[in-house]
Amino acid sequence: MTDPQIEAVLAPFRSAVKEQGDLVRKLKTEKAPDIDLQKAIAELKTRKHALDHKEFELSPKDDFDRMKMEDLLKQKFFYDQSFSIYGGINGLYDFGPMGCAVKANLLQAWRNFFVLEEQMLEVDCAMLTPEPVLKASGHVDRFQDYMVKDLKNGECFRADHLIEAHLEKMLTEKKTPDEKKEEIRKLLPRIDGMDRNDMEATLKLYNMKSPITGNDLSDPIDFNLMFSTSIGPTGQVKGFLRPETAQGIFVNFKRLLEFNQGKLPFAGAQIGNAFRNEISPRSGLIRVREFTMAEIEHFCDPEHKDHPKFENVADLEVTLYSGCNQMDGKPPEVMKIGQAVKERLIANETLGYFMARIYLFMVRCGVDPKRLRFRQHLSNEMAHYACDCWDAECKTSYGWIECVGCADRSCYDLTQHTKATGVKLVAEKKLPEPISFTFHFFNSSHKVVDIVECQPQKSILGKAFKQEAKVIMEHLSHMTEQEVTVLEEKLKTKSGVELAVNGKTFSITPEMITVKKYQKTVHVEELVPSVIEPSFGVGRIMYSIFEHNFRVREGDEQRTFLSLPSVIAPYKCSVLPLSNNPEFDQFITALSKSLTKCDVSHKIDSSSGSIGRRYARTDQIAVPYGITIDFDTLKQPHTATLRERDSMKQIRAAIDEIPGLVRDLAQNKRSWEDIMNNYPIFEQQETTSKN
Amino acid sequence: MTDPQIEAVLAPFRSAVKEQGDLVRKLKTEKAPDIDLQKAIAELKTRKHALDHKEFELSPKDDFDRMKMEDLLKQKFFYDQSFSIYGGINGLYDFGPMGCAVKANLLQAWRNFFVLEEQMLEVDCAMLTPEPVLKASGHVDRFQDYMVKDLKNGECFRADHLIEAHLEKMLTEKKTPDEKKEEIRKLLPRIDGMDRNDMEATLKLYNMKSPITGNDLSDPIDFNLMFSTSIGPTGQVKGFLRPETAQGIFVNFKRLLEFNQGKLPFAGAQIGNAFRNEISPRSGLIRVREFTMAEIEHFCDPEHKDHPKFENVADLEVTLYSGCNQMDGKPPEVMKIGQAVKERLIANETLGYFMARIYLFMVRCGVDPKRLRFRQHLSNEMAHYACDCWDAECKTSYGWIECVGCADRSCYDLTQHTKATGVKLVAEKKLPEPISFTFHFFNSSHKVVDIVECQPQKSILGKAFKQEAKVIMEHLSHMTEQEVTVLEEKLKTKSGVELAVNGKTFSITPEMITVKKYQKTVHVEELVPSVIEPSFGVGRIMYSIFEHNFRVREGDEQRTFLSLPSVIAPYKCSVLPLSNNPEFDQFITALSKSLTKCDVSHKIDSSSGSIGRRYARTDQIAVPYGITIDFDTLKQPHTATLRERDSMKQIRAAIDEIPGLVRDLAQNKRSWEDIMNNYPIFEQQETTSKN
Repeated sequence: MTDPQIEAVLAPFRSAVKEQGDLVRKLKTEKAPDIDLQKAIAELKTRKHALDHKEFELSPKDDFDRMKMEDLLKQKFFYDQSFSIYGGINGLYDFGPMGCAVKANLLQAWRNFFVLEEQMLEVDCAMLTPEPVLKASGHVDRFQDYMVKDLKNGECFRADHLIEAHLEKMLTEKKTPDEKKEEIRKLLPRIDGMDRNDMEATLKLYNMKSPITGNDLSDPIDFNLMFSTSIGPTGQVKGFLRPETAQGIFVNFKRLLEFNQGKLPFAGAQIGNAFRNEISPRSGLIRVREFTMAEIEHFCDPEHKDHPKFENVADLEVTLYSGCNQMDGKPPEVMKIGQAVKERLIANETLGYFMARIYLFMVRCGVDPKRLRFRQHLSNEMAHYACDCWDAECKTSYGWIECVGCADRSCYDLTQHTKATGVKLVAEKKLPEPISFTFHFFNSSHKVVDIVECQPQKSILGKAFKQEAKVIMEHLSHMTEQEVTVLEEKLKTKSGVELAVNGKTFSITPEMITVKKYQKTVHVEELVPSVIEPSFGVGRIMYSIFEHNFRVREGDEQRTFLSLPSVIAPYKCSVLPLSNNPEFDQFITALSKSLTKCDVSHKIDSSSGSIGRRYARTDQIAVPYGITIDFDTLKQPHTATLRERDSMKQIRAAIDEIPGLVRDLAQNKRSWEDIMNNYPIFEQQETTSKN
Repeated sequence: MTDPQIEAVLAPFRSAVKEQGDLVRKLKTEKAPDIDLQKAIAELKTRKHALDHKEFELSPKDDFDRMKMEDLLKQKFFYDQSFSIYGGINGLYDFGPMGCAVKANLLQAWRNFFVLEEQMLEVDCAMLTPEPVLKASGHVDRFQDYMVKDLKNGECFRADHLIEAHLEKMLTEKKTPDEKKEEIRKLLPRIDGMDRNDMEATLKLYNMKSPITGNDLSDPIDFNLMFSTSIGPTGQVKGFLRPETAQGIFVNFKRLLEFNQGKLPFAGAQIGNAFRNEISPRSGLIRVREFTMAEIEHFCDPEHKDHPKFENVADLEVTLYSGCNQMDGKPPEVMKIGQAVKERLIANETLGYFMARIYLFMVRCGVDPKRLRFRQHLSNEMAHYACDCWDAECKTSYGWIECVGCADRSCYDLTQHTKATGVKLVAEKKLPEPISFTFHFFNSSHKVVDIVECQPQKSILGKAFKQEAKVIMEHLSHMTEQEVTVLEEKLKTKSGVELAVNGKTFSITPEMITVKKYQKTVHVEELVPSVIEPSFGVGRIMYSIFEHNFRVREGDEQRTFLSLPSVIAPYKCSVLPLSNNPEFDQFITALSKSLTKCDVSHKIDSSSGSIGRRYARTDQIAVPYGITIDFDTLKQPHTATLRERDSMKQIRAAIDEIPGLVRDLAQNKRSWEDIMNNYPIFEQQETTSKN
């Protein structure tokens, strides 16, 4: 990133961005007319784009071969196109046994890391969603791309993709005059920011036709990206497949708040599928029509966005590509999360805390920290609901791709659903004293509530139950209103009621309690919680992990493998008999049993083929550890070899010890270096031909 | 089931069924005209229905209170109606934190019990499915119900439900003449078997109108139960939300077979959502529009449906309600699985093996074995594709409901997809010798294949590599055709090629190998595998488990709880400080850490409220074990109490020991009785009022 030669080339691009960034800032402070500001921002984007493009072009290329990786993933059925025997459907993928295991492990890791460790409230909501919900969320009106139609055969193209392809083709053509090429080069980076009118004008200016048929094209048309359907038989209830899982959490806000005993903050979480009817899906798992998301909605008091565990992560260093640096044409910076929040670069502690947790999770699951950065949304590209937003981006052969969004959505969603339904989605804060100033509260009021209390008669209970009286009194005085009412009713007709306390039963008589009813004034403020939303695209994360962990063995081009961390590897361990000698069988069975007991998922490969070939096969499906049973295993004391995938080093250990070692290795409780230092290295595989 | 008084009442019903069953059998053997057979079957169904109805009516009622259970499930947010703040959508449910945890645990248990233990190939396929796939599977044409429409306002009703409700209402009305009532009583059990004409006739005969508006109704209309949508922007690719997960496995058959190295048998498995656009959903989680399924498709040689692990389950006793017993009006019988297969009551070992595994899984997850039976489909109710089918049914307050289907689908699905696509979905069986008789094979042929082999030159390699030569030769002689070709190419241009074997690199020169190319005739038979399909309805199983485990504490009507087994309980353990004494905090923190280390999910409840009330709360969310920190904990040696939910008994143990005890209890490695016998029973809770 700091190669002086590269920086020299980039310098003019950087200063062009900065110049324009400064202009935008100036116009903003001067409250210049909107039209001027918009023009300046469009130019800023153009310059930023040119800088990014040049930077990516100059960045050192690794010798990653995407085709080779995709071959491996396809051949070992990690994933592949859906319905291929029917010709396939673009943007739909099926995960095979290996991909499915990686995905299940990734989701389990996510659940442990977020839901369990942070005590989040996980929900599992319907994917079918009635229209009014998505009208309120803004998706019905705003979740769209522009497309153009072939006027003769109706074929559709995503407008921005078509314009880009057309212009790029013109650039390569000899017949295009040089001044036209210059114009096109300036236009290309602007495509992302084009609105419908810009696109219409560009299509006309260059007289663009269908790239397939040469037919005339329609003007750009809004195309909503949601799949629509009809719920029930009448056709009157219009519904969509949810475009994100978040709305399911928002519409359950009241229930979750109640589940959390009315207290803020708390987080809802959901893992599930969402759907986007992309006009022209491409880039493999990156842009698909059906995908799994894992989303968190952290609800908190808008005035208190600090986080109790923030200090645990304050010293974590992450790469931040702030809005400012983007405006100034500067590169991303490595910075401590604590520092970034202190400088108000990251809006608040909770947002910063989640960014740190996202970083730690991604790295744990195999994302290369050098290819992971957080990019801040510029104020003009932020979604309509967000007040600060950072994308965790992974660098892949497709460029930097957004894998996790981390946004402060403020109170947008809950407010919208309240407006649409009339149901107040608010939390209540009890105030200790009647309030004298209330100006900063959303709503503050006195409330008169009915109280029904059970007052135990100590002396009577004491006489009747002696030392057990205390427990009973405790129980009685903490009964709910409803419980008290039921007990009171029963005591009206019976002289004694059986009451179960801590597993024992006691007979309560009317004189033992007094039921007191009165009214009380409570001072509460109502507030609409703010929402911090980390939103994970599971397929994109998986794809980045595959790219970051694809390896080729030195000196053997054909021997590719995946260096996935144990936590997400499909199997943790392989068990390989050196040959099909029947004497090996009992050891395999015993090993398999004790690996199962240690919860180590494993694959036994007793197929023919040299041990080297079988290792190569298990390397391809990312099995991190391999146990080989050989002829020395048959001797007393029984031993076997244990091999580590990445280094291909082996040690020899007692066969009874190995399952425990693998469990500890797989759970990161012990390192391979440590094992290597404590067991004899096995230098050379004894082998025999089969039988 | 053998109460003589009840049996006396049922006897005439039973013999009426048997009489008709015999007639049906007779007509079948006589190959009577189809119309006569259909009539006889319809009458058989009527009589069976009357018997079932009477039997359910007479069966001893437990004092299960569904409303009370639903209150608990709603209040603790196990699940609730989706989008309620928008008025709710029938047939859609959201799982809250507790239901979501139960569901995740149930699915994890399923994955361990089936996918891991049986080494199945799990896949995760697209839900969006293009029309041709579901045309081939039969769903486009046959997956439907009949509905009638209010001719004025367009409101729809499921025809059979409307007819039933109308007739039942007439039965209760005074104005209905007695002979009409008699006629209705006879008609009611026939509704299930009605075709469109029968329904049309019945609607006309009773002059049925809309129960809501009194308006005229349309004739019955076919209504396909799939949700349709359009994939991509053109509107030309019609798609549906999958009505089952099975088709995703079938269309991936070739990839899975290849993944399994071409060998049969193997099983594909899938967990995922499916969708049915029910006309009028009812019965809570039982009949919904979006639901999670877990399906297994076991592919095997149609001539070898034996199962290697069958003997492990042969002695398991299950309740079987065979087709014969249903035809004879006899009750279900308890029988050993081995016996049932031996008598050919269950069609084959593989089907029997899966039925046994289903039984074991269901019971492990909390289904009451006394309320679990397998009912065989009668030949006339079997799906068009199945050749034998048993439903695992659970008895609930809604009656016996189908929770798992276990069908031998023969080769129906693969054949259909082959017909539709022209892609051969077959497995190959290599034959040891040229075959002299082939009449029973689907397709048997000679195949000429090109062989490329690498023959290592032993003496040259031996000289060069000494004792390592063996490993290298092994490696060379097992290279794939492609690897050999690549090596050969390299050796043409270089004098030595680096070859990695077992982590070491060796330099191979051209004279060390000979590449041999020749053709070989292989004798293979092609076969279309049979499919055995166990198909689990996750929501229905969960509902049955909730009903079977809902309890009310003796002597306290208000105190309801769920007695879920540890494996699916949302948390395994609670940690409760007796009061909010700050001295307890360090013990809570330490306990929580070591519980996490033992992988025991737990909930800390330090809220106010007596310990009894807090126990009652954790009982409601089915937490099986509870640890209480009390004043004795503060003393040396530090101890705490451990409580079991169902018995409410407590023991006292050293605080360091408890996390391990809970882990062993939760994993069924130790029983509560055993703990009770080895630790002092804690009879009485010391308590104090708060501070």
